[in-house]
Amino acid sequence: MSVNSFGRLSRFTTWGESHRPALGAVVDGCPPGLELSEAWVQTFLDVRRPGQSKFTTQRKEPDQVKLLSGVFEGRTTGTPISLLIENVDQRSKDYSEVAESYRPGHADYAYDAKYGLRDYRGGGRSSARETASRVAAAAVGRLVIPEVSIRAWVSEIGGDAINPDNFDAAEIGRNPFFCPDAEAAVRWEKLVDEIRLAGSSIGAVVECEATGVPAGWGAPLYGKLDADLAAAMMGINAVKGVEIGDGFAVARLTGEQNADPMRPAEAGPEFLANHAGGIAGGISTGQPVRVRVAFKPTSSILTAVESINRAGESAQVRTKGRHDPCVGIRGAPVVEAMMALVLADHKLLHRGQCG
Amino acid sequence: MSVNSFGRLSRFTTWGESHRPALGAVVDGCPPGLELSEAWVQTFLDVRRPGQSKFTTQRKEPDQVKLLSGVFEGRTTGTPISLLIENVDQRSKDYSEVAESYRPGHADYAYDAKYGLRDYRGGGRSSARETASRVAAAAVGRLVIPEVSIRAWVSEIGGDAINPDNFDAAEIGRNPFFCPDAEAAVRWEKLVDEIRLAGSSIGAVVECEATGVPAGWGAPLYGKLDADLAAAMMGINAVKGVEIGDGFAVARLTGEQNADPMRPAEAGPEFLANHAGGIAGGISTGQPVRVRVAFKPTSSILTAVESINRAGESAQVRTKGRHDPCVGIRGAPVVEAMMALVLADHKLLHRGQCG
Amino acid sequence: MSVNSFGRLSRFTTWGESHRPALGAVVDGCPPGLELSEAWVQTFLDVRRPGQSKFTTQRKEPDQVKLLSGVFEGRTTGTPISLLIENVDQRSKDYSEVAESYRPGHADYAYDAKYGLRDYRGGGRSSARETASRVAAAAVGRLVIPEVSIRAWVSEIGGDAINPDNFDAAEIGRNPFFCPDAEAAVRWEKLVDEIRLAGSSIGAVVECEATGVPAGWGAPLYGKLDADLAAAMMGINAVKGVEIGDGFAVARLTGEQNADPMRPAEAGPEFLANHAGGIAGGISTGQPVRVRVAFKPTSSILTAVESINRAGESAQVRTKGRHDPCVGIRGAPVVEAMMALVLADHKLLHRGQCG
Amino acid sequence: MSVNSFGRLSRFTTWGESHRPALGAVVDGCPPGLELSEAWVQTFLDVRRPGQSKFTTQRKEPDQVKLLSGVFEGRTTGTPISLLIENVDQRSKDYSEVAESYRPGHADYAYDAKYGLRDYRGGGRSSARETASRVAAAAVGRLVIPEVSIRAWVSEIGGDAINPDNFDAAEIGRNPFFCPDAEAAVRWEKLVDEIRLAGSSIGAVVECEATGVPAGWGAPLYGKLDADLAAAMMGINAVKGVEIGDGFAVARLTGEQNADPMRPAEAGPEFLANHAGGIAGGISTGQPVRVRVAFKPTSSILTAVESINRAGESAQVRTKGRHDPCVGIRGAPVVEAMMALVLADHKLLHRGQCG
Repeated sequence: MSVNSFGRLSRFTTWGESHRPALGAVVDGCPPGLELSEAWVQTFLDVRRPGQSKFTTQRKEPDQVKLLSGVFEGRTTGTPISLLIENVDQRSKDYSEVAESYRPGHADYAYDAKYGLRDYRGGGRSSARETASRVAAAAVGRLVIPEVSIRAWVSEIGGDAINPDNFDAAEIGRNPFFCPDAEAAVRWEKLVDEIRLAGSSIGAVVECEATGVPAGWGAPLYGKLDADLAAAMMGINAVKGVEIGDGFAVARLTGEQNADPMRPAEAGPEFLANHAGGIAGGISTGQPVRVRVAFKPTSSILTAVESINRAGESAQVRTKGRHDPCVGIRGAPVVEAMMALVLADHKLLHRGQCG
Repeated sequence: MSVNSFGRLSRFTTWGESHRPALGAVVDGCPPGLELSEAWVQTFLDVRRPGQSKFTTQRKEPDQVKLLSGVFEGRTTGTPISLLIENVDQRSKDYSEVAESYRPGHADYAYDAKYGLRDYRGGGRSSARETASRVAAAAVGRLVIPEVSIRAWVSEIGGDAINPDNFDAAEIGRNPFFCPDAEAAVRWEKLVDEIRLAGSSIGAVVECEATGVPAGWGAPLYGKLDADLAAAMMGINAVKGVEIGDGFAVARLTGEQNADPMRPAEAGPEFLANHAGGIAGGISTGQPVRVRVAFKPTSSILTAVESINRAGESAQVRTKGRHDPCVGIRGAPVVEAMMALVLADHKLLHRGQCG
Repeated sequence: MSVNSFGRLSRFTTWGESHRPALGAVVDGCPPGLELSEAWVQTFLDVRRPGQSKFTTQRKEPDQVKLLSGVFEGRTTGTPISLLIENVDQRSKDYSEVAESYRPGHADYAYDAKYGLRDYRGGGRSSARETASRVAAAAVGRLVIPEVSIRAWVSEIGGDAINPDNFDAAEIGRNPFFCPDAEAAVRWEKLVDEIRLAGSSIGAVVECEATGVPAGWGAPLYGKLDADLAAAMMGINAVKGVEIGDGFAVARLTGEQNADPMRPAEAGPEFLANHAGGIAGGISTGQPVRVRVAFKPTSSILTAVESINRAGESAQVRTKGRHDPCVGIRGAPVVEAMMALVLADHKLLHRGQCG
Repeated sequence: MSVNSFGRLSRFTTWGESHRPALGAVVDGCPPGLELSEAWVQTFLDVRRPGQSKFTTQRKEPDQVKLLSGVFEGRTTGTPISLLIENVDQRSKDYSEVAESYRPGHADYAYDAKYGLRDYRGGGRSSARETASRVAAAAVGRLVIPEVSIRAWVSEIGGDAINPDNFDAAEIGRNPFFCPDAEAAVRWEKLVDEIRLAGSSIGAVVECEATGVPAGWGAPLYGKLDADLAAAMMGINAVKGVEIGDGFAVARLTGEQNADPMRPAEAGPEFLANHAGGIAGGISTGQPVRVRVAFKPTSSILTAVESINRAGESAQVRTKGRHDPCVGIRGAPVVEAMMALVLADHKLLHRGQCG
């Protein structure tokens, strides 16, 4: 089974490296007749696009998408949709040092150990640039689930969390941090700027909520909605943890505390809590689907770290390329994309089996 | 793609419900020539088996495995291995009340919403009994990776964590909690007994470590070792969170704090830290692979919870069947099983692509 | 991807050898709510069952199926359906000679070359007994496509073909050859009996037609209905050729001769010919889906054939076990089964993508 | 599972339509370290390229491939290889008539029935132009199996077969028909030219042989080498029949006649015949793997055929675009490509399971 594809019925495959001419995605299984344009895909790519503030990598990529197949007269035809994004602003010479030495915490050593060679420029295939392909693919996936609304936000940077009482969805798009708490956004501006100036990096937590998901999506036991979400999120660059609903907090609770009571309501049951994050037994319950995702600080920092080179000798590694001081920030649109892709797939899967 | 199968090259499919005559697994893709016997599989089933202490469900299941295919003269033949476990101690009448009402937090409502009907006896397909199939399948998977040692333990129950300084691997098998800290085991005995007597339930955290995994297993980008582990663990009954390495803690760190420096050593690089949990870029680094898994308190409790019945009317639900007061305890061997299954699959996958 | 599974959404996995205690199938992805009983599955197994006439193997197997999961109160639950068939009439000692020498034309040598060992008793995994699992799985698949009628028949044995003018569907079930031509059946009785008495074997052609398949099933380009049928049929033991519609005959025609003209009719177009066998561009057209399948004579014959043994030395091999003199005869229900399984899968796949 | 992907470990996905800007393939699972260049891929595309003689479509496509990813410093990196081919010589206006009416025998009606819309220009996704993607993908696949030699040829056009005694492999590349019999090539020149001038089309048979395949590739029972080949070949545009080895001829033989006796030889067994086409029980035997494939005459002919239009009304359809008078001719390099792709996949699959 392809290790560069994701999904079952609505399935996408990505390809491309950071410093080759282009990267892209092929989306297969999309239902026919949906309105799809380059402009629509571009909308989402623009949100993720680097270089829009000083808090993300300064690589300037227009990330203009080309829609090469699968659409006729503005509508999907049911055949594969090829999306291509050219790489424009490569500066490969930045990476000469990395060619020979392994950045600790980066995929350098692991790639070499696996393949015996690697495209070291900008991280090659392991670059976060690949997430542009996911965002483009998800723009298609979103068309499959018009009944669902998805939003992701950064809820914590370097341990400094938002105040839930300040949560304002409209605020998310108003600051460079996808932060729903205007006060936190102010604090983070200072925090991330210090990190950036120090040539350091910092971790973050992204949260995502999908509302409008009907009860019944997902499938026991190895196609569980939460398991697929876990794979989708953990597979994003720099992610080290995934929680559904209350996540690790439930490990400290009793069954009474963790219960999500139901009572009758007009349109299906009304839930009085959502510790479960909208999923039970791997199947959606009709409540909002909630995920939390932990991003590590990127390993590309200016401080020298003890490492080795390809010859196995001792080396000190500093990473001079252009990097995100807090890669979790641009993780928010990627988390949103993966949520859309998983839900679109499960909608079709459910329709296939259950009609 | 089958939603009841897991893995790529070494792939298993499970089937069966809690109160039907049997359940089982079919393991496909196992290399030929490996020594395999019912006794070997039984060893692992016995560790997971219920009813061995008062801290797990009192259902008495011998969980005797039958090895029905794929073995000839004591060795695997490369053909599918069918493992069957009979259900013996069903008491279906315990579930008469659940037939009509939905246990909040359980999969009851979600299954009905999806399929329009469900086998409610003991949770049917959503019962934790299915994990016996995983443990049996993993006994085969372990044969594929003799170079790897795996151990899982409970590190926290209801918020009461072990003291890392007390960690003693030998202790794990000596108490009914898979607890590596003898002092914590004493505290937990009291804690879980109280929960049990109260007809309540409580959450737990399980940790798992695999040593001996060489660098190079795993595959970017949608076959990442950590993503597959996340899916494997999140798909276990009652799991709500998965961390690789330091998990959510890294979201609070800087790049300097999170670095895993390397220095030359005889057999590949020596790492000076393992924040990454042995995986970088989705590929193993040669360090121990570490996972943390959060189990919720089972939703089957004796306290009445507000709910609805199949007709959509208000109902109070108490669950009278035999249940684990802390389902995370028996989660430890299941986490270990899923770790083995993922690693076995990735070993073969790596060998297939990279020789 | 599992090499012992077939299908995409409606997917089945088979396991088991000829001389182990049992064999079976796990059917995944079946829609919920369908009426399913052991008796229904048995109906189809009984048609395929060996030992019912002197023209098939004399191994007496009741082929009683056990339905172990996935059904509750007589209806499918949407969870995997485990079907188990015990082996009863094994005579393993018949195979002592085969243990050491390779039957030419049989899978013996290939299995040893691949796996380094094999269960030689009765062909082990390569035995035609495995097709019982397919027939059982197809009994489930048929429930998914009540709109479709499928019938298969033997159209040729040893080069002696039926007369199409004599075709009588009702005749198929009245003779031991699944022969729709009463006159041919009389001839074949003599022909196959001679082959049987001579300890020889003979080839046959099976044809299959599915009516009621609506236009639109199938999927370009690597999920084509005809490609999936080709894989399904070519994968049956002893099959060496597959044709869709007119098959190889079209290679001799011009475009005018091969056209399937259409004209308006009440329910969709009326086709004036069906050279295409009901499939164009990999998608069903609404016409009957027609397949022809060539079965070789089984390689198990009493005449000594030059061969080698496991040590690589010269050996003369005669096969003394109980075998079908014309394995194509019992191929008819298996071809029918594979047709049902492919169509059921594509119905769900189409529904998933196109609603 | 993606319906636009093929293969298990070495898996490719194709995308693109006849009259959109480009088409291409993404090849996943390729081993690292193999030398790969655009020039290498171009070699094979040039063999299949249209417009090289009057016997193929007059569409002039340079079919220049761009290698967009997965290669670094001239070697494969183990990451997905994206191959893109631009469409240059589209004349969409040729298809105005086809937009409204269905060409009998073509995929027009089936696509509309399935998707409710279609890109009718040049057949859209169902165009034989898609096979360029397969040929490009196979150029990568060939690198995986340097031990194997593959050649395909046209053995029959319109019922006029080559004389096996005249078989000369060197002749295949010397005439525009991939014909190994110089005499037949002369006859075909006249035959196909007449068909072309009449605006008609004609069927053909392509044969393919792979030598150097070691014993042991393939996998029972739903990953059989012959079943995968059957799917691969039947999925090529215009194919209606597939035979392995002697194919349908074996249905007329006895077991004695069909035996492939073996005798000891230095490097494994020597086979005295190859009725089986190099495959037994779904696994290669070490003999040449032989396949025969039947191509229908393309349905695009100038003679008016009775049909219907999208409104369901009667229509006479003549197809005025540029077409192959004998699409089977250019089928030869495509059959060769699919053979390479299937073998490459099974080599890796075998290595994965059996080491």
